[in-house]
Amino acid sequence: MNFIDRLRQAWAAQQTLLCVGLDPDPARLPAQLASSAYPIFEFGRAIVDATADLVCAFKPQIAYYAAARAEDQLEMTIAHIRRHHPAIPVILDAKRGDIGSTAEMYAREAFVRYQADAVTVNPYLGFDSLQPFLDYADKGVIVLCRTSNPGAGDLQDMASGGRKLYEVVAEKAARDWNANANVLLVVGATYPEELREIRSIVGDMPILVPGVGAQGGDVAAVLANGATADGTGLVISSSRAVLYAGSGSDYAQAARSAALKLRDEINLCRKT
Amino acid sequence: MNFIDRLRQAWAAQQTLLCVGLDPDPARLPAQLASSAYPIFEFGRAIVDATADLVCAFKPQIAYYAAARAEDQLEMTIAHIRRHHPAIPVILDAKRGDIGSTAEMYAREAFVRYQADAVTVNPYLGFDSLQPFLDYADKGVIVLCRTSNPGAGDLQDMASGGRKLYEVVAEKAARDWNANANVLLVVGATYPEELREIRSIVGDMPILVPGVGAQGGDVAAVLANGATADGTGLVISSSRAVLYAGSGSDYAQAARSAALKLRDEINLCRKT
Repeated sequence: MNFIDRLRQAWAAQQTLLCVGLDPDPARLPAQLASSAYPIFEFGRAIVDATADLVCAFKPQIAYYAAARAEDQLEMTIAHIRRHHPAIPVILDAKRGDIGSTAEMYAREAFVRYQADAVTVNPYLGFDSLQPFLDYADKGVIVLCRTSNPGAGDLQDMASGGRKLYEVVAEKAARDWNANANVLLVVGATYPEELREIRSIVGDMPILVPGVGAQGGDVAAVLANGATADGTGLVISSSRAVLYAGSGSDYAQAARSAALKLRDEINLCRKT
Repeated sequence: MNFIDRLRQAWAAQQTLLCVGLDPDPARLPAQLASSAYPIFEFGRAIVDATADLVCAFKPQIAYYAAARAEDQLEMTIAHIRRHHPAIPVILDAKRGDIGSTAEMYAREAFVRYQADAVTVNPYLGFDSLQPFLDYADKGVIVLCRTSNPGAGDLQDMASGGRKLYEVVAEKAARDWNANANVLLVVGATYPEELREIRSIVGDMPILVPGVGAQGGDVAAVLANGATADGTGLVISSSRAVLYAGSGSDYAQAARSAALKLRDEINLCRKT
């Protein structure tokens, strides 16, 4: 089954659009994990097990693992999800982008080494930099479109012939890059108007929406502007607001409570 | 000493603009390394030792190491360069780009974990995604501008108000992002006209130029269009044409011969 079908199954089976992002900052790990041989993995596993029935996907952010020299713990985390929560797809947040021959290596990193179900990619280098990822037809390729950060507009809002750069990316994603029906987009929750425009361009293509929680995106606006007619089409990701909801011995329970609240808030805004 | 000063010293001391890129494809390693515990490191070390007097920088491409689950061998390779060839700066080719909090982790990956002197980054997310890298004032931040691949123009050539996206990136790099004087650009050798335009925008900012060799860029055109008045300003990178010049037991000597030829070809085109 391909990634988008897996995502649709998870939306339906679990009745949730929530994705929990795994951004394990070593400076913020619970003190009780300090003596563990694999504290980043133990943290991720606890978060995963505490929230797996509330999410449609998990999204580990590779930068946190790489900075900590902990690629092995990323492998362990993804393997844990695949073994114990096989219905929940894994999105590797890596935002890779390079020339074709190098992109082949990055695709191998994401899909073969880490066994991720989808990966985020950067479109700046154009189609041939995406092709090696797209060739994995069963995997999801999630292209940055309008990102959630304050400087997103520096380049992405550049306008040409009445169309902004992020709109060009959305059009190319929907029309030129989607031969294997495995493309998705990233649109930040912090820019709901742009989300509405992009939804109008890409039909029912699923959109990964980071930026609720710590970054301040509004859930109601995301649903109103980004959901498809059936009340799905979105993977709404929260990382820090869930991961660091608590810092004591009950951190996993605190993360579950935060995820539960956010899942319910999202579902209240769905128009199904 | 900061990265650009180190680069200028290497240009002057070694009289070369050549950079050797380390893209160790496991499928193309010499057969004699098959029994090594660290074949990727052994290969890189042999190439480095055979070419260190011919280059102004080495540029390991992290994707090849990541795909092979060999981050340790990347660490070993960079440590070897720093110990045995301390005058040669190391550019980590990683093309990272993410929101600020994640970019902090990627900067830590490049500069703290791997101890690279410079890293390549992708500007699609805008200024705040570059800031965490730029804050390392002694390190080089090499921003993708006009890349060497066939699809480079898909987004980079988008025009707005008479300026193309890559020209906007060059202007921002020179005027807005360079407070620490540690920004460089990537411009592919395969697009010499664009290189000329970019040089006219950025003054004497150093430019990393991949794409000679396997990708077909023309050395004379690169020098004519990209060199500064003193015949420097360029880091001309070749990877596959050097690394895989030979495949037998003399592969390091074959790599040296290819690098020597390319260095001399570049120097013949310099107008100093």
